[in-house]
Amino acid sequence: MPYTIGLDYGTNSARALVVDCKDGREIGTAVVDYPSGHQGVFLDPRDHHLARQSPADYLHVLEKATREALAAARQAEPSFSPEQVVGIGMDGTGSSPIPVDAHNVPLSLDPRFEENLNAQCWLWKDHTGIPEAAAITEAAARLRPQYLAKIGGTYSSEWFWAKIWHCLKEDPVVFEAAHSWVELADFVPAVLAGVTDPSRIQRGVCMAGHKALYAEDWGGLPDEEFLTALDPRLAGLRDRLYTEAHDASVAAGALCAEWAERLGLPAGIPIAMGEMDVHYGAIGCGVDEGTLVKVIGTSTCDCAVVAADRPVADIPGICGIVKGAILPGYFGIEAGQSAVGDIFKWFVEGVLGDASLHATLTEEAALLKPGQSGLLALDWNNGNRTILVDQRLTGLMLGQTLYTTKAEMYRALIEATAFGARAIVDRIREYGVPVARIVCSGGIAEKNPMLMQIYADVTGCEMRVSKSSQSCALGSAIGAAVLAGVHADFKTAQAAMTGLKEISYRPDPANQSVYQKLYGLYRSLHDAFGGVVSSASLGHVMKDLLAIKTRVSKH
Amino acid sequence: MPYTIGLDYGTNSARALVVDCKDGREIGTAVVDYPSGHQGVFLDPRDHHLARQSPADYLHVLEKATREALAAARQAEPSFSPEQVVGIGMDGTGSSPIPVDAHNVPLSLDPRFEENLNAQCWLWKDHTGIPEAAAITEAAARLRPQYLAKIGGTYSSEWFWAKIWHCLKEDPVVFEAAHSWVELADFVPAVLAGVTDPSRIQRGVCMAGHKALYAEDWGGLPDEEFLTALDPRLAGLRDRLYTEAHDASVAAGALCAEWAERLGLPAGIPIAMGEMDVHYGAIGCGVDEGTLVKVIGTSTCDCAVVAADRPVADIPGICGIVKGAILPGYFGIEAGQSAVGDIFKWFVEGVLGDASLHATLTEEAALLKPGQSGLLALDWNNGNRTILVDQRLTGLMLGQTLYTTKAEMYRALIEATAFGARAIVDRIREYGVPVARIVCSGGIAEKNPMLMQIYADVTGCEMRVSKSSQSCALGSAIGAAVLAGVHADFKTAQAAMTGLKEISYRPDPANQSVYQKLYGLYRSLHDAFGGVVSSASLGHVMKDLLAIKTRVSKH
Repeated sequence: MPYTIGLDYGTNSARALVVDCKDGREIGTAVVDYPSGHQGVFLDPRDHHLARQSPADYLHVLEKATREALAAARQAEPSFSPEQVVGIGMDGTGSSPIPVDAHNVPLSLDPRFEENLNAQCWLWKDHTGIPEAAAITEAAARLRPQYLAKIGGTYSSEWFWAKIWHCLKEDPVVFEAAHSWVELADFVPAVLAGVTDPSRIQRGVCMAGHKALYAEDWGGLPDEEFLTALDPRLAGLRDRLYTEAHDASVAAGALCAEWAERLGLPAGIPIAMGEMDVHYGAIGCGVDEGTLVKVIGTSTCDCAVVAADRPVADIPGICGIVKGAILPGYFGIEAGQSAVGDIFKWFVEGVLGDASLHATLTEEAALLKPGQSGLLALDWNNGNRTILVDQRLTGLMLGQTLYTTKAEMYRALIEATAFGARAIVDRIREYGVPVARIVCSGGIAEKNPMLMQIYADVTGCEMRVSKSSQSCALGSAIGAAVLAGVHADFKTAQAAMTGLKEISYRPDPANQSVYQKLYGLYRSLHDAFGGVVSSASLGHVMKDLLAIKTRVSKH
Repeated sequence: MPYTIGLDYGTNSARALVVDCKDGREIGTAVVDYPSGHQGVFLDPRDHHLARQSPADYLHVLEKATREALAAARQAEPSFSPEQVVGIGMDGTGSSPIPVDAHNVPLSLDPRFEENLNAQCWLWKDHTGIPEAAAITEAAARLRPQYLAKIGGTYSSEWFWAKIWHCLKEDPVVFEAAHSWVELADFVPAVLAGVTDPSRIQRGVCMAGHKALYAEDWGGLPDEEFLTALDPRLAGLRDRLYTEAHDASVAAGALCAEWAERLGLPAGIPIAMGEMDVHYGAIGCGVDEGTLVKVIGTSTCDCAVVAADRPVADIPGICGIVKGAILPGYFGIEAGQSAVGDIFKWFVEGVLGDASLHATLTEEAALLKPGQSGLLALDWNNGNRTILVDQRLTGLMLGQTLYTTKAEMYRALIEATAFGARAIVDRIREYGVPVARIVCSGGIAEKNPMLMQIYADVTGCEMRVSKSSQSCALGSAIGAAVLAGVHADFKTAQAAMTGLKEISYRPDPANQSVYQKLYGLYRSLHDAFGGVVSSASLGHVMKDLLAIKTRVSKH
């Protein structure tokens, strides 16, 4: 009876899961907070763009979470023994690159740098590299337009090169001391495998392709000439990074003796290739051609796959199309919304100042019909990741009268995120990616049926919820199960180990018809304020909303 | 030592003021609520457009408020005697027409109609005549474009003909029973004068010109042919209305014996011509050429005058230009914003649900610099009265991030009303009406220095506050003082009886420069959503706001 372990490194904590490979049952789980910083994150009061994390914390939680999950598994199933664990997988946030020395030891562990935030892990949500990201986009547009075509047109400040280049400019001592830079999702598997030479780390194509401009098409990472155009010292780093990156069909290594002992697991078991959290999450939700997976949290991440046996078009505004990034043998397509739960949280806690209102407002908003409030909002409080790829966009709400209620505003914000979700679905469908249904994961999907129904009515897709509440960790455990040979391939493994909750949210035709009109108005605003069109006619918007409001209020 | 009495009929209550004609001192005052309906207004839960008021209440408060004010005056000044009262004036809301029988008795006092809301006064804010107003605008555009030129292009559902025509359609029995229709501001003076024949009521040009399409240019009220085009029965009413309307240099009559006794005043004293509340309010604030008066309350009313010795251009979007409407010898120009205080009230009480937050938010908002929030709003939660004249417009706010605070939103709403105020000032200036300073009246002007400073910075005008908190009643008392011959004319009377509070809000050049840019962005939204332009480029708006935010946050 084989088991695998899935590890999920989130923003504030890490989670370990012991999974039964036969049916995906989660028999033991443990969550451990990162001990350092503010909720695990180092911040800088003088620069709200900065967000760093301690690599030492990563090692600490690795041992603690795994041991606690194993203990929980033994408690739940007395017959379980760690000897039955046949593989281990890991996913993490990204791009979260760590500067390491020539022995794959994080610079932050060097006493010279222990107080230096630039020597820590540069967490995904660190935006200090905004100027460098803009310069990379500008240079690529000029010199290597093919790079931009794969990432939706804009290089993000959240990504690998922007961060490293910013470090070079901001703190050349750290930059020079770094022998290489390793993504969190490559670092933890390498540690488990006992790799002490950065050049021997197996790098995942998921991070490489989505964050570091890696593609087989142009021979791996960006070429030296391009990097030299950015900064010659960046070009010098290229040789100390990697030339090849792998999909999840390749192991990151085998569990080394030291870590086997620290974790209490058999040495030599395979370690799955590290992937971004939501990509293994997509696998844990059962992603396949036609199933879009949406991980709905503070923001959303949308993942789809199309078979790699035929070429896939570049899709404007989609932040990543990478072969093998999610499932081996498929192009992985990643999109996302910069804020979803964060917008509701902002309105309820930040503006209304009362977190307990989430429940009341949800109840009241559920009684409203589509279009009844006369409100329309844009979901851009944190910019727009897909399909506009523009952080310098902000929120908008219109249609307020003297009688507009907070429940109406709350619902309008939920609808705005649904419209944003539809813009993504429409865009990838236009470019040939089939979307027959949407499987969601995350607390909001599990707890808010109103939101799920609105998403179904707005997108016109059936909405389902992943059976597992820990789909990311589950996905990495599936990766380990495939590498261990328990299942022949990911398709078989997913069939055995993933599932859906019973409830299905199907589009209601009457609601769909109202939302079709509202979405048209949303797109008018979206295209005008997003700069998609250089000139827009908007005089009709408020009046159309009032006409819809009058009509739906009568029924 | 002569005194006059000013009566002010508001929406929920009436106020009487005993004023010293020498210096405008208010020696006695009384406020009496209308006893009927909800806070004095009859509502219909099935139709939120309906708002009616009891003419019996008008008579009740007339006696009660006057007697109480006289008693208060005696208390304050033992030497005062009602025998010293040399005149009485009155202002009221409008258009608030009352159907009366052939003896000038309101139909509502007829037992046949006492339960019928259509026989009551049709209060200014009754909007049941929306379809009729639209039809009048349409017919005038086709047949009498000159009518529309004087009222800013659109006939309002709040006005005389829309209400009467709606009554005709909705309740022909009341329409047929009505011998005539009398504006509240004409009715009370006629009652005081003992007029029992509607044809002998002195009608004020203020209501006639602003609400009933009366103008000397086309021989008084709209001609029979035009009214017949609307409905032949309306044309039949024309002869039972009036052929001439007067400015405030003409008396509405002399106090009759019956009412002299009921009020405890000398019989025969002159009664000033009734005017709309804010028009006498403008007089009470010292309106003259170059001084714009703004009465800031739930909504605002803006009044300006230009000497009538030269022709004045029609001003697009300005709801009224009427010779003699405010001051005799001047064109009266009226504009307004459909909601000001009501927007703040909606946000604080309706959305945030805590009226006590007004003070806290004002304090916090006062600490913000112009442009610092990155927010921009439109002040259209109750439509736009001037300069778009469109009730079917709604609110808008943009620029929200995940960190936007309620104090920032509150300030953005105040700024939005300031931008709306500037749009009015700019428009009337463009058409040759001088605006050198703005004198405000109303609780908000007295209590909110932050708002006043923002208005100064946005409009570029010095902002002052009227010394009297009861400028409408004071204005009608001034009208009575002039008619009684205490002062030779309004100019002399205003010089003696009105004044300003000491505080002056002057534009701050640094703030003005930021607001100049924000106003440009406001106008982009205003013109796009208001349909002023059929096509707009808005892709720059959010980014410009972010750029301004970044710049002002640095200083």
